[in-house]
Amino acid sequence: MLDLFIEAGKLKKLPRMGWLLRGVANPESVAEHTFRVAFITLFLGEELRRRGAEINVEKALKIAILHDLAEARITDLPLEAQNYVDKKKAERKAMVDILGAERVGYFTLFQEYEEEKSPEGKLVKFADKLEMILQAWEYEKSGAKGLEEFWEALDYLKKSEFYTYFKELVDGLEKLR
Amino acid sequence: MLDLFIEAGKLKKLPRMGWLLRGVANPESVAEHTFRVAFITLFLGEELRRRGAEINVEKALKIAILHDLAEARITDLPLEAQNYVDKKKAERKAMVDILGAERVGYFTLFQEYEEEKSPEGKLVKFADKLEMILQAWEYEKSGAKGLEEFWEALDYLKKSEFYTYFKELVDGLEKLR
Amino acid sequence: MLDLFIEAGKLKKLPRMGWLLRGVANPESVAEHTFRVAFITLFLGEELRRRGAEINVEKALKIAILHDLAEARITDLPLEAQNYVDKKKAERKAMVDILGAERVGYFTLFQEYEEEKSPEGKLVKFADKLEMILQAWEYEKSGAKGLEEFWEALDYLKKSEFYTYFKELVDGLEKLR
Amino acid sequence: MLDLFIEAGKLKKLPRMGWLLRGVANPESVAEHTFRVAFITLFLGEELRRRGAEINVEKALKIAILHDLAEARITDLPLEAQNYVDKKKAERKAMVDILGAERVGYFTLFQEYEEEKSPEGKLVKFADKLEMILQAWEYEKSGAKGLEEFWEALDYLKKSEFYTYFKELVDGLEKLR
Amino acid sequence: MLDLFIEAGKLKKLPRMGWLLRGVANPESVAEHTFRVAFITLFLGEELRRRGAEINVEKALKIAILHDLAEARITDLPLEAQNYVDKKKAERKAMVDILGAERVGYFTLFQEYEEEKSPEGKLVKFADKLEMILQAWEYEKSGAKGLEEFWEALDYLKKSEFYTYFKELVDGLEKLR
Amino acid sequence: MLDLFIEAGKLKKLPRMGWLLRGVANPESVAEHTFRVAFITLFLGEELRRRGAEINVEKALKIAILHDLAEARITDLPLEAQNYVDKKKAERKAMVDILGAERVGYFTLFQEYEEEKSPEGKLVKFADKLEMILQAWEYEKSGAKGLEEFWEALDYLKKSEFYTYFKELVDGLEKLR
Repeated sequence: MLDLFIEAGKLKKLPRMGWLLRGVANPESVAEHTFRVAFITLFLGEELRRRGAEINVEKALKIAILHDLAEARITDLPLEAQNYVDKKKAERKAMVDILGAERVGYFTLFQEYEEEKSPEGKLVKFADKLEMILQAWEYEKSGAKGLEEFWEALDYLKKSEFYTYFKELVDGLEKLR
Repeated sequence: MLDLFIEAGKLKKLPRMGWLLRGVANPESVAEHTFRVAFITLFLGEELRRRGAEINVEKALKIAILHDLAEARITDLPLEAQNYVDKKKAERKAMVDILGAERVGYFTLFQEYEEEKSPEGKLVKFADKLEMILQAWEYEKSGAKGLEEFWEALDYLKKSEFYTYFKELVDGLEKLR
Repeated sequence: MLDLFIEAGKLKKLPRMGWLLRGVANPESVAEHTFRVAFITLFLGEELRRRGAEINVEKALKIAILHDLAEARITDLPLEAQNYVDKKKAERKAMVDILGAERVGYFTLFQEYEEEKSPEGKLVKFADKLEMILQAWEYEKSGAKGLEEFWEALDYLKKSEFYTYFKELVDGLEKLR
Repeated sequence: MLDLFIEAGKLKKLPRMGWLLRGVANPESVAEHTFRVAFITLFLGEELRRRGAEINVEKALKIAILHDLAEARITDLPLEAQNYVDKKKAERKAMVDILGAERVGYFTLFQEYEEEKSPEGKLVKFADKLEMILQAWEYEKSGAKGLEEFWEALDYLKKSEFYTYFKELVDGLEKLR
Repeated sequence: MLDLFIEAGKLKKLPRMGWLLRGVANPESVAEHTFRVAFITLFLGEELRRRGAEINVEKALKIAILHDLAEARITDLPLEAQNYVDKKKAERKAMVDILGAERVGYFTLFQEYEEEKSPEGKLVKFADKLEMILQAWEYEKSGAKGLEEFWEALDYLKKSEFYTYFKELVDGLEKLR
Repeated sequence: MLDLFIEAGKLKKLPRMGWLLRGVANPESVAEHTFRVAFITLFLGEELRRRGAEINVEKALKIAILHDLAEARITDLPLEAQNYVDKKKAERKAMVDILGAERVGYFTLFQEYEEEKSPEGKLVKFADKLEMILQAWEYEKSGAKGLEEFWEALDYLKKSEFYTYFKELVDGLEKLR
């Protein structure tokens, strides 16, 4: 298990490339992003449960914690790179290698996220976008510029099935700008 | 909820003071540490469950995600500072303010960690120490010096009730050095 | 004395938390702030003396050099943290420990600053605020945003007994914006 | 052409991932590496010419300047990532896109490097390895650890056809350690 | 030759002082600047050749690669410093020492740049200014402020003999703002 | 006076070049160094006074605060650069310009330091060397290497007239290693 924890530690070193390439000085790491995705997942998940939606919070938290683990091997490829590289395929293969044969159950969780095929997978994707937009706003508030395109993910949030539950939150985020 | 997520975002900016004061250049943030504590908690928790221990993994994950949230308000006070400041009291008060009256249940989770009064609280404390030692080793492996005292936390791990479950892991960590 | 000099060296490592939490990348250290406070104290002190005010420049310089030394032990607690921690009490206790029993005279100097009870203590407080506003302006000039609240310290400067002496300076600072 | 120069500017922002993942704080950028590869190519190329080898220095310099340009699109993928991604194919495709249809001649130069099929292509590969080992030594000299595997590239240098010309240089590099 | 390559490596560590003093966080190094100057020189040189201008591209590339090498010894002195120091003289002396007696030919190349006395020397000076303005724009696009004076170098570009060839490029650069 | 304080602020941005060129990541600034030189001067000066030496502590503190101010204009030129540049002359000229005609008295203080021609000037030189060695040790303690030559300044300390007063301190510093 030590190997696995060392692997996860690499996420502390990997800068989020989207910010880096737009000139944010010392941008957040993948680990920092993952932390807040898990944090958001926790509170959104609980809220969904409270309001009667069918959601397994434990499962959602696991997905959140694991959702970017493949980047320990393939790094945080910027959007542009994905014209040249099959990121999904690479991530899947990397996840299999990182988790090892005995932990195939976690791989299934990862796929639920990637393919958005369970409520929990969808929730983490929702949290992932929300976290990114919030971070864009935080950088802009401190003086960063050139981060417009990150706000486009608001569309994703508004089209999500969770929007009815979190309309106030999403609209509040939009109004921050 | 947006306020709460912004609060959590501060943990990305806060350096872990123990490393900083020992001269580690660009040390990890509190958010990075928290990420791996949650990661470790996930795998240790599942392993405990698999081996029949009574552990609520969902609860453990929530505790892990929240365990350093008070630092958003009081920062990561170094050990030394705790001779001058009642850190526990400050953290408790900060947690109440951050979470707000309507989320008092999470405060209870935080207390289970702080006072190590539930298996889940104890497990996160175990993961917290393990993560710190692993990070010390990673810094040392890259050339850092002067981190001896962090290894003293091995004692805590060995005296823990979880040591029988994770002897191999803890001994493996010790042998890394 | 070596221990004391090592203690002072910690101020080089400690970021000024106000800037850090507002997203300034690589903000100044406590030592850098202290340097300019001492620098400002020197020139303001001499000017006061030149214009007949009763001021002991040597004493003022000593206070300036020592005014943030307690942060070597308790770090630069952000304003917010002071709702949870009795910073004044902590600083006083830390100063006693850092200076040691044989240097109690310096502790008295520190108190003159903290309680603004001598002209020299007041002057350093004045220089401390002035330095902070100037730094806020410098960060803003380079593109930083979100530093509005630091400018509120202008009020302190204008209400100070030294304002009559340094009206031109303070007004000049205000006009920079 | 402006677009092309902006593209090249991205190499200033991209950290060399090998160092980053081994914990070097603030490692060099791809642009910094490229600079010294071109520098080395210049002096090695001239020396080869002086000693009667058939080498087109102008061509070699062009190759050196362009050899990592594809990373502007796909970033500096660490060795490990290449188990999951077809880096060569990605780089070729990225080079075509970056250079544009009207600059196909430069793409041919890039291929000479990548496939080591001309003396100039081979020379830049030689300079690329030499630069990397020299950088590893420089980091080690400043205190970095864990960079052993970078020294394995010495083998490549010793097996190169240029080794007879630069034996003293390569052996000197080896002795630095 | 190893000594020479180590000397060139210092350019990776030296920040470009103009940006640093205006508060750009983690500004580019001299090596990063030099990389793009060489890159620009390559494409401008080829374009000139294509359009029938008399230009030796190989020579131009060599000049570009070497043009800031003296800074390995005297650092990147900011403009202001040049009121106190004879930078040209210092650079010339440093170049002689760095290159050594046996490489006097390269010194002649350096002089062609410094005194702008050959088409190749002039071209690198042109590329040097163009690179700087482009970098200023990139920093501004990411949120930096206070870089107005760097744009004054547009005048140099417009008065250059190369302006007729690169009017579109220079005007395009100006319009970016 | 605002201009003067802005000038002093530049020292926060200027890295100490000796460390930077030896690969220390994020080395201290000139302002950080100056802070501790002033701090050391304060305690050494008071100790000298206590033991009956003729020393004007106020004057010594002023010299300490001003001793590197010229670097705001000419930066922290590394030792090596001084083979190419007349640093002393440059500093003197820069000090005159920074201080302005009306503050010529401060220039005299600066000269006492530079030429070590008063007890106070000598004391600050002593503190300057002591601070540098202590910083070298602190970097080494954190894992830095290649800083041997900084320890040679111990010779200066031992040959100083103040050595008899501070033998214990200097010897203690030597023993740290």
